[in-house]
Amino acid sequence: MDIATVIGLVSGTVFILLSIVFSGGRLGLFVDIPSVMIVFGGTLAALLVSYPLKRFLAALKTVKHAFSSKESDPTAVITQINELALAARKEGLLALEEIAQGMDDAFLQKGILLIVDGTDAELLRSILETEIAFVENRHKDNQGFWATVAELGPAWGMIGTLIGLIAMLDSLDDPTTIGPKMSVALITTLYGSLLANFFATPVSSKLKGISDQEVLHKQVMIEGLLSIQAGENPRVIEEKLKAFLSPAMRKNFEVPKNEEE
Amino acid sequence: MDIATVIGLVSGTVFILLSIVFSGGRLGLFVDIPSVMIVFGGTLAALLVSYPLKRFLAALKTVKHAFSSKESDPTAVITQINELALAARKEGLLALEEIAQGMDDAFLQKGILLIVDGTDAELLRSILETEIAFVENRHKDNQGFWATVAELGPAWGMIGTLIGLIAMLDSLDDPTTIGPKMSVALITTLYGSLLANFFATPVSSKLKGISDQEVLHKQVMIEGLLSIQAGENPRVIEEKLKAFLSPAMRKNFEVPKNEEE
Amino acid sequence: MDIATVIGLVSGTVFILLSIVFSGGRLGLFVDIPSVMIVFGGTLAALLVSYPLKRFLAALKTVKHAFSSKESDPTAVITQINELALAARKEGLLALEEIAQGMDDAFLQKGILLIVDGTDAELLRSILETEIAFVENRHKDNQGFWATVAELGPAWGMIGTLIGLIAMLDSLDDPTTIGPKMSVALITTLYGSLLANFFATPVSSKLKGISDQEVLHKQVMIEGLLSIQAGENPRVIEEKLKAFLSPAMRKNFEVPKNEEE
Amino acid sequence: MDIATVIGLVSGTVFILLSIVFSGGRLGLFVDIPSVMIVFGGTLAALLVSYPLKRFLAALKTVKHAFSSKESDPTAVITQINELALAARKEGLLALEEIAQGMDDAFLQKGILLIVDGTDAELLRSILETEIAFVENRHKDNQGFWATVAELGPAWGMIGTLIGLIAMLDSLDDPTTIGPKMSVALITTLYGSLLANFFATPVSSKLKGISDQEVLHKQVMIEGLLSIQAGENPRVIEEKLKAFLSPAMRKNFEVPKNEEE
Amino acid sequence: MDIATVIGLVSGTVFILLSIVFSGGRLGLFVDIPSVMIVFGGTLAALLVSYPLKRFLAALKTVKHAFSSKESDPTAVITQINELALAARKEGLLALEEIAQGMDDAFLQKGILLIVDGTDAELLRSILETEIAFVENRHKDNQGFWATVAELGPAWGMIGTLIGLIAMLDSLDDPTTIGPKMSVALITTLYGSLLANFFATPVSSKLKGISDQEVLHKQVMIEGLLSIQAGENPRVIEEKLKAFLSPAMRKNFEVPKNEEE
Repeated sequence: MDIATVIGLVSGTVFILLSIVFSGGRLGLFVDIPSVMIVFGGTLAALLVSYPLKRFLAALKTVKHAFSSKESDPTAVITQINELALAARKEGLLALEEIAQGMDDAFLQKGILLIVDGTDAELLRSILETEIAFVENRHKDNQGFWATVAELGPAWGMIGTLIGLIAMLDSLDDPTTIGPKMSVALITTLYGSLLANFFATPVSSKLKGISDQEVLHKQVMIEGLLSIQAGENPRVIEEKLKAFLSPAMRKNFEVPKNEEE
Repeated sequence: MDIATVIGLVSGTVFILLSIVFSGGRLGLFVDIPSVMIVFGGTLAALLVSYPLKRFLAALKTVKHAFSSKESDPTAVITQINELALAARKEGLLALEEIAQGMDDAFLQKGILLIVDGTDAELLRSILETEIAFVENRHKDNQGFWATVAELGPAWGMIGTLIGLIAMLDSLDDPTTIGPKMSVALITTLYGSLLANFFATPVSSKLKGISDQEVLHKQVMIEGLLSIQAGENPRVIEEKLKAFLSPAMRKNFEVPKNEEE
Repeated sequence: MDIATVIGLVSGTVFILLSIVFSGGRLGLFVDIPSVMIVFGGTLAALLVSYPLKRFLAALKTVKHAFSSKESDPTAVITQINELALAARKEGLLALEEIAQGMDDAFLQKGILLIVDGTDAELLRSILETEIAFVENRHKDNQGFWATVAELGPAWGMIGTLIGLIAMLDSLDDPTTIGPKMSVALITTLYGSLLANFFATPVSSKLKGISDQEVLHKQVMIEGLLSIQAGENPRVIEEKLKAFLSPAMRKNFEVPKNEEE
Repeated sequence: MDIATVIGLVSGTVFILLSIVFSGGRLGLFVDIPSVMIVFGGTLAALLVSYPLKRFLAALKTVKHAFSSKESDPTAVITQINELALAARKEGLLALEEIAQGMDDAFLQKGILLIVDGTDAELLRSILETEIAFVENRHKDNQGFWATVAELGPAWGMIGTLIGLIAMLDSLDDPTTIGPKMSVALITTLYGSLLANFFATPVSSKLKGISDQEVLHKQVMIEGLLSIQAGENPRVIEEKLKAFLSPAMRKNFEVPKNEEE
Repeated sequence: MDIATVIGLVSGTVFILLSIVFSGGRLGLFVDIPSVMIVFGGTLAALLVSYPLKRFLAALKTVKHAFSSKESDPTAVITQINELALAARKEGLLALEEIAQGMDDAFLQKGILLIVDGTDAELLRSILETEIAFVENRHKDNQGFWATVAELGPAWGMIGTLIGLIAMLDSLDDPTTIGPKMSVALITTLYGSLLANFFATPVSSKLKGISDQEVLHKQVMIEGLLSIQAGENPRVIEEKLKAFLSPAMRKNFEVPKNEEE
């Protein structure tokens, strides 16, 4: 699990608990099963109407990507392309086929096989860019799912509060019960707000960040593969690909290079 | 009817009913005919001003697509293209005309007939992509209709609540009636919120999902038809079209293929 | 006047009146001249600052398009193109000039005259598409005007309510007047919400629908004119243009054709 | 000053004053210096953090464009192009240089000089379109500035109200002061709302309208200049440029022409 | 530090303090540690879930750019390009290599080296525009980070207020404590609103302005480098690049030029 996610989830929970304690509230007051039901149940029910079952289950599972620590490194991609370029220089394009077998990146592998098959540069770019476009679309659908959760959560929180208020206002017999009843009615709004701002929105943001990085890496790969196919000098290829890095990453990248030399 | 939709609608209704019971409210309190009238009637009236009658009725009917379980399978499209490619290989492009007769997909049929007629590849792509663009536009209009419902619903809910509040505040003679009157005034806000978050927004989302999939299938068909026209190898075509599938679908796709072989 | 618009405006008004009656309010209570002044006057004043006078008056007049029943029929456009194609086949392109004289569609007329003048296909498309783009831009400006009304209305409703609340809170001497004064203060919010959700938003939606249809018809005309210029077969042209129709419209279109044959 | 702007500002102010009088409030109650400070001061402070000083001062000055009555006439642009076309026909392209000297439109002047210099048509279009793109970008920045004011105003209005409420709730000793204190607290919200809906949003809209018109005129100029360069017939050029006019403007345009003939 | 930022931060703080004093509140009342914790802590926690740790720390650091006074001058860029053009004219393109060594703008340096290496114009533009696109993307990510802060801040402010209200309403024993408790509950909403409207939104705006300017300068550099490569006249290059300046900047630019002559 990503260390920042752990710190975020734990510290956020601590801050909420402390806030409850400091406001003089009993912790038990904030755990209300019927409120859980209407907010989380209602949101879930609306999601089931919004998506086909398979799509719903698949989107739900993407939460694990948001919490994984598998942060890929763009400099690793450039190093890998560099090795391929050197191999292609020394042993020819056909030598890449063997290297491709041992790879675990299906996209890079596919690109190499297309080069080995003698695919035209224009077509190679078009095939790989189409694949990126579809990957990006699928990712956007998943981010959209969590953005929908972030909209439905507070809406169902308000639905719960409205139900509670309507019931309370209808029977104002005993004025001493007004406060506690309103208190309970507001808990659904709190749940909905937490679902959106402590969970669904951050998950959607995280998935977007991961997707952006994956797409960036695939773009680096395309540029690299096209340069290898064109028989460019490995040094030139490396220079070219470094345009994709941020200044900070470029600096990090140069340090190991200097050590190598 | 789609199983997820049924589960969603039933469970959502149960959660709402339970929430009412737990909040100590009488079920009858939440069924208020005048509130139904102002929220649903007002939303309907505003929709009738927003759309010509034909358009309004057509858009209303799209709700049945959102609830149908007819989930099309992208692997089926690829299998179908594959069979066409094999037939074209063995018996020539003209043999496709007969196969096209028995098809129930009008888009694929049209594409085949254009190939048989000897339409140029560039023109073929342009005609079929124009058709996709128009299909997508019509779908977006329908999603937009339900998104409009999701905006007007809560707005008319608030209009109902304002009318109730204004009437109540004008005659504050009997303080014991304030609660029940406010209670009734708030019911329209609840109705508007449910109309948006339990019905209209999910229907709009579902229609978008269905449209995206239909467009994807049509894109697969275009790529497949162009490859068939170009006389490409059926195995290569299959590989190419699989780029349109998600990794999960690709895996599913390979299992039946292994069984076939 | 469009029948849906009439039904919408009348039924919406009835629903609002019934809602007032059912909430126990006096109808007179909901008609408040000072509230009309601040909401409608304020919105108007802000619109006058937002637009030059001519632009403001022109945009205001577009409301009549939203209420007109002049719903143009895409199949009529195709039939018209078909007749032009037949005439061009039989009597040559120059014969179209005479037919163009009797037409009341300035766009189609202009296109025909350009063909008769021997304008190059590329230039013909570019001139007509430029005209479409400008038509669409002007329409978008008008939709934007009504969308602005839909934003300013509720804002000035709230300004009215704030003024009422501030005045009321400042002199809380007589508690029995609080209710009626708040009641009056809220009427401006009700007016603003009705202006937006019963009038301005629907008008903007309706104008968008009309514009989309006009643009679609003009696009059908461009494709038809280019096909006529290229000397394509009238049957082929008809087939091609039907891609612009929705499946439902296509079915309607075929019925009269069968009757003709 | 634009007549619509004057009417808008004066009538809006009158409506606000009348609304205050009708709500029974004292005018003095609505003028509160500390409220002015927190809303206008706070918004200004946030704007100073948002923009570098030069940029802030430049954007602030654009308010004068929104209030100027200098409404340019597209038909005047077409007439001007027409005169240039006639001169080019009679005396050759080089004769345009002299005419360009006396012009006060720097864009048209630049275009003419580029033609006289023998700039290639493709390059001419690219240079002038680049200039339009940059002009449009600068205008959008200015509209964005006022849109930011329209967002910050209500936000700082709410900040003022929150400060007032927190201070009031903390010392509820004397119940008779609650009303007046809340009354004062709400004035900041009123100020923020007026800043946005009576000033900043309309200014942003007006600037957008002016910018759209300037860009349209520059586009007409580009098309006209390219046609002059290509040596097209002045009558044809006039016809072509009229596609940029709305039907209403076209009608106005033809009247003077008939008078001339 | 940018002078406008200092004035903005100081004056904004003064306005807030004065507003507190004028509303009759004690300053101490507005400093509440538990409220700080839930608003700032909660926002931070949600940000940690939203971004990987490295990304979070990098984005946080961009705040220093928003406060720096390093405002780059577009006329300086044009002057620099002009000098390069003159050097290239006099001593040839190869002479630029030496000048490039002493430059501190890595982008311009890279462009010069590509020219000296004899890179093709088309490729030169494509490499440098790719670099701009990536720079712009990274900047947008940073602006997006602060925009996320501006959304999460008020959301966590409301979460704090809800917790306070729920706790207060649950124990309404002593009516005299209601006011002070609600007062404290509202402080989190105030903090959240200030975090968004006095800090995060302005920082995001400022970063956007800086980014737009940097991108503009890089575009000027590309156009200038391509013109130098094409061997255009330095005077012509200067004229061309001035299209990128606003009219005000153009005027400023001409003054020093006149002095030089």
